[in-house]
Amino acid sequence: MSLVVEFRSALHVVAVVSLALAAIMLAPAGMGLSLGWPGANSFLVSAVMVGVVSLMVAVSTWGARRPDLTARFGFMLVNLLWWISPAVCAVPLMLGPAQLSFVDAYFESVSGMTTTGSTVMTGLDGFDHATLLWRSIVQWLGGLGMLSLGLILLPFLSVGGMQLFRMESSDRADKPLPRFVALSKVILLVYVGLTLACAGLYSLAGMSGFDAFNHAFTTLSTGGYSTHDASMGYFTGTGVLWVGTVFMIAGSLPFSLYIVLIFSRHRMGVDPQVRVFISIIVVATALLFFGRSGDDAHGLHALAQDAFNVTSVITTTGYAAGDYTVWGTLAVPLFYVLTFLGGCAGSTAGGLKTYRLIVMMELIRTSLAELLHPRGVFPMRYGNRQIAPDIFRSALVMMMAFIATLGVLTILLGACGLDFLTALTGAVTALTNVGPGLGDIIGPAGNFAPLPDTAKILLAIGMVLGRLEILGSLVLLSPLFWRT
Amino acid sequence: MSLVVEFRSALHVVAVVSLALAAIMLAPAGMGLSLGWPGANSFLVSAVMVGVVSLMVAVSTWGARRPDLTARFGFMLVNLLWWISPAVCAVPLMLGPAQLSFVDAYFESVSGMTTTGSTVMTGLDGFDHATLLWRSIVQWLGGLGMLSLGLILLPFLSVGGMQLFRMESSDRADKPLPRFVALSKVILLVYVGLTLACAGLYSLAGMSGFDAFNHAFTTLSTGGYSTHDASMGYFTGTGVLWVGTVFMIAGSLPFSLYIVLIFSRHRMGVDPQVRVFISIIVVATALLFFGRSGDDAHGLHALAQDAFNVTSVITTTGYAAGDYTVWGTLAVPLFYVLTFLGGCAGSTAGGLKTYRLIVMMELIRTSLAELLHPRGVFPMRYGNRQIAPDIFRSALVMMMAFIATLGVLTILLGACGLDFLTALTGAVTALTNVGPGLGDIIGPAGNFAPLPDTAKILLAIGMVLGRLEILGSLVLLSPLFWRT
Repeated sequence: MSLVVEFRSALHVVAVVSLALAAIMLAPAGMGLSLGWPGANSFLVSAVMVGVVSLMVAVSTWGARRPDLTARFGFMLVNLLWWISPAVCAVPLMLGPAQLSFVDAYFESVSGMTTTGSTVMTGLDGFDHATLLWRSIVQWLGGLGMLSLGLILLPFLSVGGMQLFRMESSDRADKPLPRFVALSKVILLVYVGLTLACAGLYSLAGMSGFDAFNHAFTTLSTGGYSTHDASMGYFTGTGVLWVGTVFMIAGSLPFSLYIVLIFSRHRMGVDPQVRVFISIIVVATALLFFGRSGDDAHGLHALAQDAFNVTSVITTTGYAAGDYTVWGTLAVPLFYVLTFLGGCAGSTAGGLKTYRLIVMMELIRTSLAELLHPRGVFPMRYGNRQIAPDIFRSALVMMMAFIATLGVLTILLGACGLDFLTALTGAVTALTNVGPGLGDIIGPAGNFAPLPDTAKILLAIGMVLGRLEILGSLVLLSPLFWRT
Repeated sequence: MSLVVEFRSALHVVAVVSLALAAIMLAPAGMGLSLGWPGANSFLVSAVMVGVVSLMVAVSTWGARRPDLTARFGFMLVNLLWWISPAVCAVPLMLGPAQLSFVDAYFESVSGMTTTGSTVMTGLDGFDHATLLWRSIVQWLGGLGMLSLGLILLPFLSVGGMQLFRMESSDRADKPLPRFVALSKVILLVYVGLTLACAGLYSLAGMSGFDAFNHAFTTLSTGGYSTHDASMGYFTGTGVLWVGTVFMIAGSLPFSLYIVLIFSRHRMGVDPQVRVFISIIVVATALLFFGRSGDDAHGLHALAQDAFNVTSVITTTGYAAGDYTVWGTLAVPLFYVLTFLGGCAGSTAGGLKTYRLIVMMELIRTSLAELLHPRGVFPMRYGNRQIAPDIFRSALVMMMAFIATLGVLTILLGACGLDFLTALTGAVTALTNVGPGLGDIIGPAGNFAPLPDTAKILLAIGMVLGRLEILGSLVLLSPLFWRT
């Protein structure tokens, strides 16, 4: 019984979100109609269609008994949102000038919403502005969705050790909803502010206004969609690369950091994952700079490229500035390993996340000590805090589920006819929400368009699984979920 | 102080083992001299050299105060044995007809001792019999070493969840040593018996006596050294493949199973890892049989090839029968994933081991239940037994350490100039002790000879790390280990 109540209620929320998405579609439509962009009216049509259907669903699910905020309701809502919203956002990609098939449009839209950034669209430079802007907006919205996931929902649902990042006493609050609304407003404010700052600086560094806003949308969301086939390689100056590097990092830091910095009176210690995250970027950039081979491997422009590409991969953005797969035999495995790491929890970034790396190292450290002193007690720490074993376990379970899913997805992609390198790195880049893989087809100089439809669907599923920290979707497979 | 006492004592054990190895070198020497094999006298020289040096070390460490059987002493002994014994076994490869360089000989010897089976020797069919026999003997001894590791030492040291397999009350015994000696005798008996049975059946299936014994040595040890460049592909009949399949599985089952079957009066439930292990082989073989493409993909010979190659990889043996990398896009990722899995704990096999797969799945299952019912209690089980969380954690820590090591080793191999596929699969195949990787160089149709020396050394280190369940060697990096 309660399963049905919860489903109706969750569907209502999804319908309201879809209504909002329809309203947002009016932005490219309005801009397009006033500036004379081709195909802008298709966005108007899409907005009306989505709006009408959403309204019908919203009305028909209205007035349903309000369910309790159970864990199951949370997982149901999160899953419905992340599986259905991309279909809604795909409508203008099918009806508009892009004329994508449903599978292509859904892939592109999932890749946007999950801020992955893998694309099936080629010839971006010649595309209509409305479609390009819509892709960037979808990605920006996906980044916002990730922030609310990472800062509110997943900590609340205790997924993958995210309970480590519950805001002060939010878990004990009797009425979590008002707190969540207040927190969401602050997050939105910070996100908008950073995006505007990024767009301004991109513009100063030489981008056109249109490019500056599009790339700001996809930089802060660590998404990586570009308006050019050459991605950031289109821009020749180093200024753009450094602005991109700084704001990709800004998008990958825990947004709680900004909230504390801006609103809190008392000084707090910095989350240990920030220090480790920055250190990894610096070390990897140095390794790449000194280990890279090729004609353009030296000098300040090379350094900017190195820092940009390292940051792009570890923040799971996925912009490319030059094809790093031809930078010698150190670069490729380095980027492969960086692909897994990801940014900080509570940011727009994907991947395994820096705090899990810390948890992993701390667990290995204490376990080695216990091996040598079986009767000793070696508590695990996260920064200065001593952490309960169940949080550590929870963080590790996500990594285990990630690895198991990676194995299965790689085999399935192979069964679709993909060569090994494409299957393996395609699975990795989808689950980590990075974007480009390795190899001729889906590498940083490639595109996902040539893949068969089944592979595109599998990759889209992988992206959503990755975004929901695997476990957030795997709960649907538990028989307990379906108990009425 | 105690560090020095422990080191002297451990060195004494290593010297005694080296003396035994010198004695075993007399086997190919004696056979060679009586049968007129070329180069057999170099084995006599090696035996005398190793014997004299070992005796000197044994005498000079004699009479040292007996250390307590602490965890540190255990780790020190295990590490000294697994790093030094291969150097001892490498001597005839340098002095004998093979004339290998030190790096090549050490690589070959480590690959033998760890039952990995990666080889730097080409033109095996034309090699002298003494060298070929010695390689097989080293691998057989390595398998025996693995059995004592997996059934006695690692459970005693609680490495990587192996405490799950402690024999009845062995952890509470006041005097573990006499029990260990008794157990070792039984293990040796079973191992020898299975080897003789395997050699007999290989011979019946058409192998020459020499080939039958060599391959029996490297089948039961799940090592994979062959006397032919084409590995098992040299033998055209399916009989050899099925005998190999059965005895590779026999080598990968927990030897405690045999001990219980033969010596125990009361019936015990079968270890759950056995059922899962066999199921994986059956399912993977079926997947491969129906998903494989190519001219020879059908019929009974293809089925024998499929079962043999699946078993060869999952048991971490590493024989090849045909180049499975050209069997279509499903085969390669399937073999890649199988490479990680490994056989059962307490066998001669490497890899992550089946029981860790069970632990991983059980952990994911209970964690999903806990996500849905945060206040519920969902105990973890291994078969019918309820298992303490620390054992589960211990099993997972090994997997984490494995993954971290894999990432580092892949990058280092890339820095040596290896292409990505070679670096990645080389690191995997070394750490899992399987043998062949993927790609043109180290794939099942390839050879490790063309790799640079630094890469060979890194891979040899990876093999020993893999054999000692990573953590068994990583303890050396803990500052606690070096405290006097």
